[in-house]
Amino acid sequence: MNNPLKIGITHGDVNGISYEVILKLLSDHRILDFCTPIIYGSPKAMGYYKKMLNMETINIGIVSSARDASARRISLVPVKSTDEVKVETGKPTVDAGKAAFEALHQASEDVKAGIIDAIVTAPINKKMIQSDKFSFAGHTEYFANTFGGQALMLFVHDNIRLALVTAHLPLQDVSKALTQELIVSKLRILHNALLRDFGIRRPRIAVFGLNPHNSDDGLIGNEEQLVIAPAIAEATAEGIVCVGPLSADGFFGSNAIQHYDAVLAMYHDQGLAPFKALFMAECVNYTAGLSVVRTSPSHGTAYDIAGRNCASAQSIRSALYLACDVVRKRAQFTEMSANPLITTKQEIAGNDQE
Amino acid sequence: MNNPLKIGITHGDVNGISYEVILKLLSDHRILDFCTPIIYGSPKAMGYYKKMLNMETINIGIVSSARDASARRISLVPVKSTDEVKVETGKPTVDAGKAAFEALHQASEDVKAGIIDAIVTAPINKKMIQSDKFSFAGHTEYFANTFGGQALMLFVHDNIRLALVTAHLPLQDVSKALTQELIVSKLRILHNALLRDFGIRRPRIAVFGLNPHNSDDGLIGNEEQLVIAPAIAEATAEGIVCVGPLSADGFFGSNAIQHYDAVLAMYHDQGLAPFKALFMAECVNYTAGLSVVRTSPSHGTAYDIAGRNCASAQSIRSALYLACDVVRKRAQFTEMSANPLITTKQEIAGNDQE
Repeated sequence: MNNPLKIGITHGDVNGISYEVILKLLSDHRILDFCTPIIYGSPKAMGYYKKMLNMETINIGIVSSARDASARRISLVPVKSTDEVKVETGKPTVDAGKAAFEALHQASEDVKAGIIDAIVTAPINKKMIQSDKFSFAGHTEYFANTFGGQALMLFVHDNIRLALVTAHLPLQDVSKALTQELIVSKLRILHNALLRDFGIRRPRIAVFGLNPHNSDDGLIGNEEQLVIAPAIAEATAEGIVCVGPLSADGFFGSNAIQHYDAVLAMYHDQGLAPFKALFMAECVNYTAGLSVVRTSPSHGTAYDIAGRNCASAQSIRSALYLACDVVRKRAQFTEMSANPLITTKQEIAGNDQE
Repeated sequence: MNNPLKIGITHGDVNGISYEVILKLLSDHRILDFCTPIIYGSPKAMGYYKKMLNMETINIGIVSSARDASARRISLVPVKSTDEVKVETGKPTVDAGKAAFEALHQASEDVKAGIIDAIVTAPINKKMIQSDKFSFAGHTEYFANTFGGQALMLFVHDNIRLALVTAHLPLQDVSKALTQELIVSKLRILHNALLRDFGIRRPRIAVFGLNPHNSDDGLIGNEEQLVIAPAIAEATAEGIVCVGPLSADGFFGSNAIQHYDAVLAMYHDQGLAPFKALFMAECVNYTAGLSVVRTSPSHGTAYDIAGRNCASAQSIRSALYLACDVVRKRAQFTEMSANPLITTKQEIAGNDQE
């Protein structure tokens, strides 16, 4: 590849497992065949973890700017105020929170300026990162605010994708938060992401009901009839292929997930409990709906196992692959859509008429 | 074994997959080594499915009463008004609903009279079975009503068990239905079933929270602090080993389920979506809290595949094994608890003092 993608990797919380998974990820040099990884972090913390994990042979070049990162090399951009950050493995500290924010900020500036192509974010401590510069529930909200657009949290495992209509909401508020408009807007973002970011020509979306057994024809609640079915009808009328409402337990029990490109669950545990049960180690968190590409491993800081050399790099590896993939798929999509007269879809339509 | 257990198998809905899974189950003659299966059903429907599925060599003796069932033979008790039942594979019919009820009624009478030791129920159509004699949401409620006691639906896969505090309730009513009393009462039934029916000496129970991320320390709802934690404290004070509240998605994602004997979920999809995602084909539905032993496969009538010879007998086989197991474990428990002076627990306590 002549022009490998530049992927920024923010170091997240220096007291968690982030340096461990980043080092394990980059210890496989085949990564350099398809992208140029640029870590936004602290040379001091990196040195600490390289020594602790016995990975001192991994060659990482310190560069003052991501502009200077060379292909076929691993680079590290030291971020502001992290030269003195104290690593306290397994502990939440204000220092680590500050260092996590600085990395995020620098990488965001660079992706905005087109210096890097995408960002993979290692996990942060959501409490410790809070400051006057960062007052968000997490990465997703930070990116939505920084880059505009309606962000949709999407969990990805191979060809299986899960999105949520409501996320961090008390369970008793879920029913009243569900509106036809909200569901349709999530379906639009999801559909668009499947087309543009995942390169799926005719994406199929499964939509869950809210109540047990999908309400058993209205015997157990009625949001299915009043809100969800009308939302599906509205989206269908717009050309979005979506099926439902479906019963979540039956759907997962019958492995119906294999027949769809994505699932839209109504609330957090309905989607994430089964999804994580099936795919935890290998799933990636992708923020759909943004102008920039951002992925993240699905795990957290994992303080309980930090520094023990037992963390798996599988999720961050999948996150890196997905980031590269989405950047390329978006470029293809832009190219294909550039001249609407020659899209394949219209060619096919033309052929049908002959 | 000198005295194999007599297990009644009710035929459920004659238009679903019940005869198919029963025939597949009993085609393995090793079943007869440890129990005497007695089908409550229709000789006509049985003949129909034997022919359809090309299983005419399976020898089934028609007996007028379960009393006459011989060991090492498969028996069928023809139930009232089923000699003329019309089989219409894949269709919900009033006839089939009536035949399903009659089998259930006859088997219940027989288990009450001590003629059979336990009941395995093949799936019914919950709408078609309704009549002046049966006005219940399903098997579980019918058994609770017929035999008294507080029934608790328990899903079992090997050594993993899941119970629900609330089941068929609209999602928006879940929060207000959760009370400390309700959760403690479910914990008591569950704990007792683990001791008595599953023979676990010191059962460990995981209890879920209600809200996403287990409320993130009260940031997302407060039922964890107000209701669930106090219920866990109350049950703990009674000597029930229970841990929580825990986050459902994290719990399933980290495979923590392996460290517990049972899980108590707060509502339907929170427990069943991940449980079925992991264990659908092999899980069994057990009704804890009853004087009689009743198990059931976890699948339904499956009209969509009825008569196609592609249904799996794995769940009904597990249901049969579990029924036998629970009957034996209960007998052992009764024996061990008969003279409280010589229980092992007290012997150990005595040893400690020496």
